[in-house]
Order: sequence, then structure tokens, then C-alpha cells
Amino acid sequence: MTTAVTKPLHVVEDLRAALPGRVETDAEHLLTYTSDRSGHRSPGVPLAVVYPRSVDDVQAVCRIASSSGTPIVTRGAGTGLAGGAIAGPGEIALSMRDMDQVLEVSEENWLAVVQPGILNGELNHALASRGLWWAPDPASKDISTVGGNIAMNAGGLLCAKYGVTREAVLALKVVLADGRLISVGHRTVKGVTGYDLCALMIGSEGTLGVIVECTLKLRPLVRGEIVTIGAFFDSIESAAAAASEVTRNGHVPAIMELMDRRTLECVSRFIGEDLVGQGDAYLLIQCDGDGAMTTAQLISDSIRAAGGRAEATADPTESQRLVDLRRQAFPAMETLGHVLVEDIAVPRDRLSEAFAKIRELEERYGLVIPTACHAGDGNLHPTFVFQGETVPEQVWVAAGELFTYALELGGTLTGEHGIGVLKRAWLADELGPTQYELQRQIKAVFDPANILNPGKVFG
Amino acid sequence: MTTAVTKPLHVVEDLRAALPGRVETDAEHLLTYTSDRSGHRSPGVPLAVVYPRSVDDVQAVCRIASSSGTPIVTRGAGTGLAGGAIAGPGEIALSMRDMDQVLEVSEENWLAVVQPGILNGELNHALASRGLWWAPDPASKDISTVGGNIAMNAGGLLCAKYGVTREAVLALKVVLADGRLISVGHRTVKGVTGYDLCALMIGSEGTLGVIVECTLKLRPLVRGEIVTIGAFFDSIESAAAAASEVTRNGHVPAIMELMDRRTLECVSRFIGEDLVGQGDAYLLIQCDGDGAMTTAQLISDSIRAAGGRAEATADPTESQRLVDLRRQAFPAMETLGHVLVEDIAVPRDRLSEAFAKIRELEERYGLVIPTACHAGDGNLHPTFVFQGETVPEQVWVAAGELFTYALELGGTLTGEHGIGVLKRAWLADELGPTQYELQRQIKAVFDPANILNPGKVFG
Ligand SMILES: Cc1cc2nc3c(=O)[nH]c(=O)nc-3n(C[C@H](O)[C@H](O)[C@H](O)COP(=O)(O)OP(=O)(O)OC[C@H]3O[C@@H](n4cnc5c(N)ncnc54)[C@H](O)[C@@H]3O)c2cc1C
Ligand SMILES: Cc1cc2nc3c(=O)[nH]c(=O)nc-3n(C[C@H](O)[C@H](O)[C@H](O)COP(=O)(O)OP(=O)(O)OC[C@H]3O[C@@H](n4cnc5c(N)ncnc54)[C@H](O)[C@@H]3O)c2cc1C
Repeated sequence: MTTAVTKPLHVVEDLRAALPGRVETDAEHLLTYTSDRSGHRSPGVPLAVVYPRSVDDVQAVCRIASSSGTPIVTRGAGTGLAGGAIAGPGEIALSMRDMDQVLEVSEENWLAVVQPGILNGELNHALASRGLWWAPDPASKDISTVGGNIAMNAGGLLCAKYGVTREAVLALKVVLADGRLISVGHRTVKGVTGYDLCALMIGSEGTLGVIVECTLKLRPLVRGEIVTIGAFFDSIESAAAAASEVTRNGHVPAIMELMDRRTLECVSRFIGEDLVGQGDAYLLIQCDGDGAMTTAQLISDSIRAAGGRAEATADPTESQRLVDLRRQAFPAMETLGHVLVEDIAVPRDRLSEAFAKIRELEERYGLVIPTACHAGDGNLHPTFVFQGETVPEQVWVAAGELFTYALELGGTLTGEHGIGVLKRAWLADELGPTQYELQRQIKAVFDPANILNPGKVFG
Repeated sequence: MTTAVTKPLHVVEDLRAALPGRVETDAEHLLTYTSDRSGHRSPGVPLAVVYPRSVDDVQAVCRIASSSGTPIVTRGAGTGLAGGAIAGPGEIALSMRDMDQVLEVSEENWLAVVQPGILNGELNHALASRGLWWAPDPASKDISTVGGNIAMNAGGLLCAKYGVTREAVLALKVVLADGRLISVGHRTVKGVTGYDLCALMIGSEGTLGVIVECTLKLRPLVRGEIVTIGAFFDSIESAAAAASEVTRNGHVPAIMELMDRRTLECVSRFIGEDLVGQGDAYLLIQCDGDGAMTTAQLISDSIRAAGGRAEATADPTESQRLVDLRRQAFPAMETLGHVLVEDIAVPRDRLSEAFAKIRELEERYGLVIPTACHAGDGNLHPTFVFQGETVPEQVWVAAGELFTYALELGGTLTGEHGIGVLKRAWLADELGPTQYELQRQIKAVFDPANILNPGKVFG
């Protein structure tokens, strides 16, 4: 193989020759690929965007890229909140959206084999008729791809009970930077042959390889009643304490979400209903499966004992109303201005401290930071509101303080949204210099020429 | 730092100086460290066995080893079935058994921080009084360490429902080959900062680092009734089909185990009760948690429809009797001679084919291969019985054929016992040359001088 560095122009020609009709270079078209949902934008448009339809196509793209030293930015649906999928000058944007087929569903083995570009919601729609579902449920499930969910190790509302994406992937086919194809993981639910490279790929944000086929671990659809509890509290501390108590009592609700006063203000305005008058914090809990009603009753009792005003219902419409209060949080916040959605996680029993810190930062920096939280797994989304196009410096400073504080509490920079370009400046703080260096070396094993999403994750 | 290679004698002196009173060189004593439960034995005794009591101790050992180029074989309780913990001439055996403290238990966060040398059974005994448990339950749980379970990614009877070890570990502290310490994973249940090196360590069989502290994900003790079903079938095919049907119907029993006729013969003789007269295959199912009784009833009905003679009970003594039939399988087999315990896994719906192949191998090679199986996750333990000290050549040949067949069925060489020295000859067959090479390079990133368990996993 010749490795002579070809000029960008030749790269585009080579791509066109390899994937006829599947290469776009129109500037308008390319613009989409310079941003995702993080608010970040790359300094200019990429060389081209390519739309492979097969594993062979992806291999061809990688071979062209590696032989010419051209970076590849793999992209699902571009809903990422960390800037991981944004492509810039001199780079190839590799859109996986046209590889969106369900290749196999097995009821006996509770697995599906799919191409990465299928939307999570589409897949689950197809699975429902077979009595199965794929559990990862980011709030973006209707607009994000399975491959993107895997590349980010996405979480969601249900993951305290049903696990994050990592727990729902059996095996992957991955095209390496140089175009070679590997199969990692197992079709079986168990398997311990060598190192777990499947787990290593999950959450790797397009920096280790291109995921081209996904063998997913499914679950049977949950049977029985769904019972939803909505509870207002006088303070976020008492609401957080009540959530802690649920766990301490050994319950595992499907959903356990917390919203602070600032969020309630936004939602109140957004839906035109006075929530703030009902309390300073809102705790949403949903129980499903066998024994849901009994569990919900025990939980309601303990919420009331903790000072919460709990309403519990098994009625689907009422249930939906209680859940929607939470689902409206993000759209409601977005009406206030631009937002920087943060994503720290802390041990469940440190939630109150995290909320107190956020309030303190609001005051000290004069910021507005409504915060919703997956209380079941200690994952907070402090949402920094700002005016104008670019994130003001003091928002970054405050966010940085918050990250440091999360680490002090035994937590992490990012529970589910990833590093991308957004948090690469802080990554080494969490990993420590030795592990940071190890991680870079692992990246170099997979991608020695650093052409897969360069500049993302690692600074 | 000088890296001059010191002679073995100096290595032992250096170890004694660093860990006074914690270094053994007595030949009799060392002999134990040359074998595990795989039947493999190294060609001679190691240089020394050391018993660290702290992370500092382990770091000191690694520094001495790396500066002198001396291999380290880390060891838990030595119950491994793949020869991963056996130490030989010129090597240091590093026993973790004296690092066996529980450092923290948090009821709020459902986590425990422990040293790796604690026995799984001891830990769970300590946790039970707090209403918590650590789910991994290898049949060896009373005699194997938490660190060993993690290093092997151990499975067990309950993992179809409660997951394998990988799903029960939040974070690890690991001493690298050169003595540096890293913390991987998160104390929180979610976290996506960089690559998942915690998952990479799990199942790495002592080849990437020494696990010195484990943050474990706990569960609340399961409440409610436990219902056990024992069912005899006329054939292994009908039993396997009934097990498949349980899954297809959307049930997730805590335990689902299958034994073939050959196993029933062994157990019959061992416990002096005629099981073979009752059928050619035995299916054991246990349901727990909310709704256990209802689920068990549905399952019993479908078993009967599939031709099984099912007995269901919620009585603890009766329950224990049904489970013990399965627990006796391995001790019963061991009375027939020496055994090579195999560990293939296949997709759940291919179980019948795997059993048929085993029967065919028995006939063709004149072997006795009783087989018990974790039917819930398609993991079979074909147990090759032989006379004499060493595994006869035709047993290896037959086992090799079986591995190949497992791969053909979409399965794996090893569902839970690992590679060690036992299966390193077949590892590349499953991984393929590209992934095999990547895995070796990852090993080299962690351990460039190849002093951690050299010769294990990779040939
Ligand atoms: C309204 C909204 C709500 C959200 N809610 C949640 C939530 O609840 N939980 C959560 O975790 N996230 C959430 N997100 C973030 C985002 O949706 C997830 O990160 C999602 O997994 C991204 O999927 P995508 O297909 O859009 O990937 P993209 O944004 O296109 O890409 C994300 C990253 O994955 C890589 N990538 C994508 N496909 C592949 C592939 N096939 N192979 C290799 N690498 C690939 C890209 O290079 C990039 O680094 C939300 C976003 C929005 C806008
Ligand atoms: C009767 C019996 C039943 C069994 N049942 C099961 C079963 O149901 N499921 C199952 O999965 N296995 C089973 N096993 C196998 C074995 O018990 C498991 O593999 C167990 O996890 C080994 O733990 P150990 O402490 O004995 O480790 P060891 O045998 O001492 O070591 C195993 C491997 O782990 C490495 N290691 C140990 N501790 C550390 C550490 N702290 N840091 C880094 N590496 C380390 C060693 O180097 C070695 O490669 C069984 C074994 C027996 C004898």
C-alpha cells in the first residue's frame, strides 16, 4: 500500500470513486456537520460528508482517510451535547444515518442485530410488536442513533433500574482507522475471551473506530401496572433526603427524578401552571413490573413521612401528566436563552451538597442555573443559561468550579454526555496523569496516525 | 532509577527488606502456588511468595519486580479453573489473601469498598446484616476472592438475572507493573469520562495490573418468596426447548440450570438416589422477588406443556433439595476420575445442538463428558473425565473440536472460567488475528516489559 499523502482534492475524488453518489461537498450542506447540540461549532466546513451504506463502504472511507492522513469525524444524528460529532476544515464527516437497518431480531436470545444509524425510537418501535425493547432511553431517543448512544454510553431516565447503554450491548463490529474490521464482544450473554474491547468501544466517542454493526441485548417488555408518584417538597434538601430514603429502603424505581425551584419556575412559566406555589422541589418516581402498586404505596408513605406532598396514580393519562412536568424541563429552560447543559454525577447521598453548591454559584456569579437530576443515579444536569451566541467566560469558570466540586464529592465530570470538546480541559483532572497517559496510549494502539476524531476527548 | 537486572537472589533480598516477615521461600510452602484448580501445574516452584498487607506493599513489590525484570503472578485463593494463578521458576507469587478488609459499606449508595483478598462468601456474610448483597455467585463463592472474581469476570448460577461480575463493579484501584497506582471507574453508578478502563481490568486475569481495592455495586437483599421448580424430561432436547420457551415467554428466573443424562447418572450414584429412572434431563428453575409465585406457576405450566414432570415448591427445605441436585453435580463427577471442566457458551437457542455435539464426541472418542449448563445464559460445562494425572491427548482433541463448534454456533470458548494457560492456544481463533494483535498491544501499554502473568492468556 502506498502511503503518500494525497492532497484534499484527491481525497474527495477518491471518496467519490469509492462511494459514487454518496459524497456531498456543497457548502450549505456541509454546514450542518459543523455543529451538534452542544453549542460548539467548528471553525469551518469539512472537506466532504460521506454516506456509507455498507461495512465495505466504511472500510473504503477509512482506507482513503488513513492512506492520506485525513481525519474522520463519525456522526450519528448530531444530537450530542459535548461537541463530539462536529467536523471542521480538512476533515471527512462520516454520516452513519443511511446504515439504519434491523438485520435480525431473536426472541429466543433477546437480541437484535442492527446497523448503527437507526434511531433508538425507530428500533424500539419495531421491537415493541415482538414484545421486546432496548432499554437505553436518553431523552433524545427519538432523534438520536443507536450507534451514537453506544459511542456515548448514553443514559436516560430508566437507567437506575435498567442500566446504561453499556449494559445493553453484547457485541459490535468496528472498522478500525486503517479500514480493518474487528468483531468485539459476544453474541452470548456471557463470555470472557481476552480483554473486553466491546466495553472499551462503548463511550469511546468515535475516537477508537467506527461502529458498523451492533448486537444489542434486549429485554422483554415490562408487564403489569405502571404507577407514578409526583411529590412537591418545601426544600430541595428534604426532597433529596426522601429520594435517598427510597434507596435505603431497598426500592429500585424505574424512574426517580428531582427538579429544583429554579426549574419549577421555568416549567411553571412554560406550561402556564403554578408549580412554584406547590413547593420548592419536585420528586418524580415511577414503579413498574410485578408488585409496582405495593412498592409505590410504601414509597408514597415514606415520602409523606419526609414532608413531601405525594400524589400517586396508575392512570396512564394522569401518569403522563406527572412525567411531562419533568420532560418539559429542558424545553422550558431553553426559552430563557442559550443554555450550557452540564452533567455531573455524585454519589446518591451527596445530592443535597451538589444542589447547595449550584445555588451558591448562582449567587456568587449572578447566574441562572436551573437543575434537574436523575436522583436514582446521582446525575445532575445544571443548566447554565446565558444570553448571546457564545458561552460567557464566567459560565466556564463557574462550571469548572462545579466539576472540581463534583470530584471532591467522589463524583465525576460527566455522567452521560461525555467529554467531546466540551470537557477535554478537565479530563486529566479526573483521570490523573498516569491514567490519562494510559488512555492516550490505548488510543494510539487503535489509531496510531490519530485520524479518528482528533482533538476530541483528549485535548 | 537504575534498571540494572538484579539476580534472583537480590530480588528475594529486596522483597524481604521491603516487606519484612511477609516473604516465604520455603519449598514446601511454595508448592501450593504452582497449581490452581485447573489441573495445571507449573514446572517448578516460584522464587518466593509475598503477602502484602497494603497498597504500598504491592507497589513496593511491583517496583522490585519491574526494576529486576522479574515476573509477578498475582493470586487470590487459587480456585481458578484456567491455570491463571500458577507461578513457576523465576517468578514472584503475589498472594492477595491478607488484604481482606471491608473498608466501607454505604447503604445510601449501595456500595462497598473492599480489599481484593476477601472471600466472596465472607463479604456477603458481612453485608447480609445490612440488608445488602454482592450478586456475583460463582459456585466457588465460599472459597474464592472478590479480587479473583473480578480478575476473571466470574459468573455463577444467578447471573442470568443479576448479571456477571462486570455488572457489579463500580471502580478499582490498580497497581501497574511499574508500581504506579491508578483509580479506574467511578464511585457513582454512572460516569463516562474517557475509556472504560474499569471494564478492561475486569476479566484481565492478572495481566494488566494488580487490583488492590474494589468499589462494588451492591443490591438490596431480594424480598418475598423464593419458589423452586425441578423438572425431569425424557430428553435433553425437550428440556432445552422448555428452557428456551421460558425466555421466549419473557420470564427472567433467578436460576435456570440444565443437567444431561450423564450428569444424572453421576449424581444418582453419588447421592444414592435413582434420578435416571425419573428422566434423561433435569431442569432447575428458581424465581425470586415480587410475583415469584405467579411467575413460577406460569413457568410450571409451560414446562408441563413441553413434556416435563415439574415439581414446584416455596418450602425452603424442599427448595434446597431441588437445588442440591444441581450443586452435587461437580463433586459427583469428580468421583469418576480426574476432570477437565470446560466452559463454552452458545446463544440460548443453540443449546440442543451443543448437547448433541457433546454426545457425538463422547461416542467418537470413547469419552465420558457429563454436562451441566447455565441454561439462562447458554453456558455449558462439559466435564471431560479421564484417568491418570495428565489430560490425555484425545481429550484435548475433542475439547478443541468442541471449541470450534461453539464458535460456529455463534458462541465463545469460555463463558466464565477464562483463558489462563488452558485455552490460550484457541484464543486467536475466536478473536481473529487483528483483534488478537490489538489485545497484545493493549497488554504492552500497561505492561511494556511483560512481567505481569507472562505466558497467561496470550500464548
Ligand atoms: C434534547 C436532548 C436530550 C438529550 N438527552 C440525553 C439523555 O437523557 N441522556 C444522554 O445520555 N444523552 C442525552 N442527549 C445527548 C445525545 O442525544 C446523546 O449523546 C446521543 O447518544 C447522541 O447520539 P447521536 O446519534 O446524536 O450521536 P452524535 O451526536 O452524532 O455523535 C456523538 C458521538 O458519537 C460518535 N459516534 C456516533 N456514531 C458513531 C458510530 N457509528 N461509530 C463511532 N462513533 C460514533 C461521534 O463521533 C460523536 O463523538 C440529549 C440530547 C438532546 C439534544
Ligand atoms: C468448585 C469450583 C466451582 C467454581 N465455580 C465457578 C462458577 O460458578 N463461576 C465461575 O465463573 N468460576 C467458577 N470457578 C472458578 C474460580 O473459582 C473463579 O475463577 C474465581 O473467580 C477465582 O477466584 P480466586 O480468588 O480463586 O482467583 P485465583 O484462582 O487465585 O486467580 C484467578 C486469576 O485472577 C488473577 N487475580 C487474582 N486476584 C487478583 C488481583 N487482586 N489482581 C489482579 N489479578 C488477580 C490471577 O492472576 C489469575 O489469573 C469455580 C472453581 C471451583 C474450584
